[in-house]
Amino acid sequence: MSFSFQLEATCGEARAGRFVTPHGAVRTPVFMPVGTVASVKGLSQELLDELGVEILLNNTYHLYLRPGVETIRHLGGVQKFMSWDKPILTDSGGFQVFSLSELRKLTEDGVQFRSHLDGSLHFFSPETSLAAEIGLGADIVMAFDECTEFPAARERARHSMELTARWARRSKDYFDAHRHEVPWYEERSRELGGEQTQALFGIVQGGMYPELRRESARRTVEIGFPGYAIGGLSVGEPREKTWEIVSETLPLLPADRPRYVMGVGTPEEIVEYVRLGVDMMDCVLPTRAARHGLLFTSEGKVNIKNARYARDEGPLDPNCRCRVCARYSRAYLRHLYTSQELLAQVLNTVHNLAHYLDIMRRVRETILTGEFASTGPAV
Amino acid sequence: MSFSFQLEATCGEARAGRFVTPHGAVRTPVFMPVGTVASVKGLSQELLDELGVEILLNNTYHLYLRPGVETIRHLGGVQKFMSWDKPILTDSGGFQVFSLSELRKLTEDGVQFRSHLDGSLHFFSPETSLAAEIGLGADIVMAFDECTEFPAARERARHSMELTARWARRSKDYFDAHRHEVPWYEERSRELGGEQTQALFGIVQGGMYPELRRESARRTVEIGFPGYAIGGLSVGEPREKTWEIVSETLPLLPADRPRYVMGVGTPEEIVEYVRLGVDMMDCVLPTRAARHGLLFTSEGKVNIKNARYARDEGPLDPNCRCRVCARYSRAYLRHLYTSQELLAQVLNTVHNLAHYLDIMRRVRETILTGEFASTGPAV
Repeated sequence: MSFSFQLEATCGEARAGRFVTPHGAVRTPVFMPVGTVASVKGLSQELLDELGVEILLNNTYHLYLRPGVETIRHLGGVQKFMSWDKPILTDSGGFQVFSLSELRKLTEDGVQFRSHLDGSLHFFSPETSLAAEIGLGADIVMAFDECTEFPAARERARHSMELTARWARRSKDYFDAHRHEVPWYEERSRELGGEQTQALFGIVQGGMYPELRRESARRTVEIGFPGYAIGGLSVGEPREKTWEIVSETLPLLPADRPRYVMGVGTPEEIVEYVRLGVDMMDCVLPTRAARHGLLFTSEGKVNIKNARYARDEGPLDPNCRCRVCARYSRAYLRHLYTSQELLAQVLNTVHNLAHYLDIMRRVRETILTGEFASTGPAV
Repeated sequence: MSFSFQLEATCGEARAGRFVTPHGAVRTPVFMPVGTVASVKGLSQELLDELGVEILLNNTYHLYLRPGVETIRHLGGVQKFMSWDKPILTDSGGFQVFSLSELRKLTEDGVQFRSHLDGSLHFFSPETSLAAEIGLGADIVMAFDECTEFPAARERARHSMELTARWARRSKDYFDAHRHEVPWYEERSRELGGEQTQALFGIVQGGMYPELRRESARRTVEIGFPGYAIGGLSVGEPREKTWEIVSETLPLLPADRPRYVMGVGTPEEIVEYVRLGVDMMDCVLPTRAARHGLLFTSEGKVNIKNARYARDEGPLDPNCRCRVCARYSRAYLRHLYTSQELLAQVLNTVHNLAHYLDIMRRVRETILTGEFASTGPAV
């Protein structure tokens, strides 16, 4: 089959496992760096390889607008396009349509919106979004959902959740009918045997209302997907609320499928989500913060522009083995940042991603050895 | 001694050689990438190592303003500061004072100017410029000169050339009295034996007037330097004029010292300057052009934003062995550039520098084998 998931160990609710896609295997729990327009900003794919990245996220909305789905399909899909022969996941574009573009009209059918680039008119529905995701050819694709805004009254959240449930059904129907259209379908099937195509994940919505989340989980699981995401979080709500929603929703998702919390979190939070039983996460935080000079280290956050680092010859993080901490001083990193040098963004991003990926590696190891449950917050 | 230069072969006027500095050897002819504020924009020092860069240029004016000479001296000099343990050359800051800053007052003594960053008042003279260069600690430092503007009337150019000659004398006097103050003086002398300090190069000026250039060369050589630069070129004059000035000036410089033409040139031009007998060159062209999507290849210039590359699966340059040409397609490079992705600037810079350095390696090899004179323009 195109997609499989095996649990290797559990430790409390935390899980270590492995999923296999047509472009390779991914060990879970996994943090997925965000490569919005088919690039993790500033990092070459060689650096991603070196960091041990096993799966990337690309944004359908951005790639749909530029360079366009047909261009990427013509070039063999996102993996070939960006010369990254490992797994990629695309979101459905829904989140960006609701957050970035000028929204024109939301109907049962879908969403009409204007491009944030040139104001041109476009229409995303479960069918057109999935058509885009199939054309882009990521290994894992997400159902088209409505990301409920925060705050939202209960009736509004219910209406939105129900729309997402109906769209999930339509997403799956379209996907099932067209999944053989992924650009690498024949090549991968020939090479690996069996039918090699994408895996479509469902998304649970329901705003900040546990009973709506429960209903959304039930309806999404009823449709049946090889993996499930919890969406509509990190949209401005307090962290305790995010926490409550995730911990109430996870037990309702099948234990034999990967569980993905979209858009989280800080280094501390990703460890705690694993503790709740989350297998996959993505977030722009490590890469975006890096570009703003905010660095995560084993000793806490470092705002590298701080004058106290001007003559600091030490490494950014004495406990980190990334190439930045191995070679450059805080003084140099501060200088690059305050001088607005390109290299600041590159080196800061390398370090922050190394920090996130190291955390996940350590967490996974302690789950496998059974020591994870007894550890406190890991960072 | 701190600095030595050996010729290994000549081929017509072209020369292959090697100079040795307290931070290592450099094979000539050499093209020196520009790392303005102690960073070649977008490239880590690991990538410079991989490209085979043997010497970098840093700009004194920029580092003097930010992070400041005392900070870099405190951190052991530019090599330690940027974690680059190979040779570095600094210019005197004169060129930037005359081109970037708001010039306040030029006197026999020196130049008062305002920082382009914050408008603060500063003063550069041969003595203060050399003090900055000694504090920064590059292996090769340049005398403080006045870069004559173009066009300049003969009398103006003569006056400027004479000022530069007097400033060269003062630069050397200051350097001789203070050369032991370079931050790594004791460490390098202890490690390598003998007196290990910087090498001060003189600069020939004289505008576009061959007889003024001849007089400048004579007076600069009279003072005596371990290497000589031809400055004041690429300031807007036609290329034939640059060519004429370089070819008339070079024979007046001692054959046993390296000859450096500042601020040139295109891939074609650097080959032709070698043919005239030039040993060292630097230019922002490969790095700056890269950031603007202009790429130099064995098949000519490529403007990567051109729509014709949108679905071009081929490498940027099929004859290039750099990591960019080995992995990425023109379509992807075009996408990164048109999407204004950071990675576009990184990858484009890697390729353009690889192209320049490959040219210089091939040129050097053909000088050593005696085949250079018989080759046409190499690119």
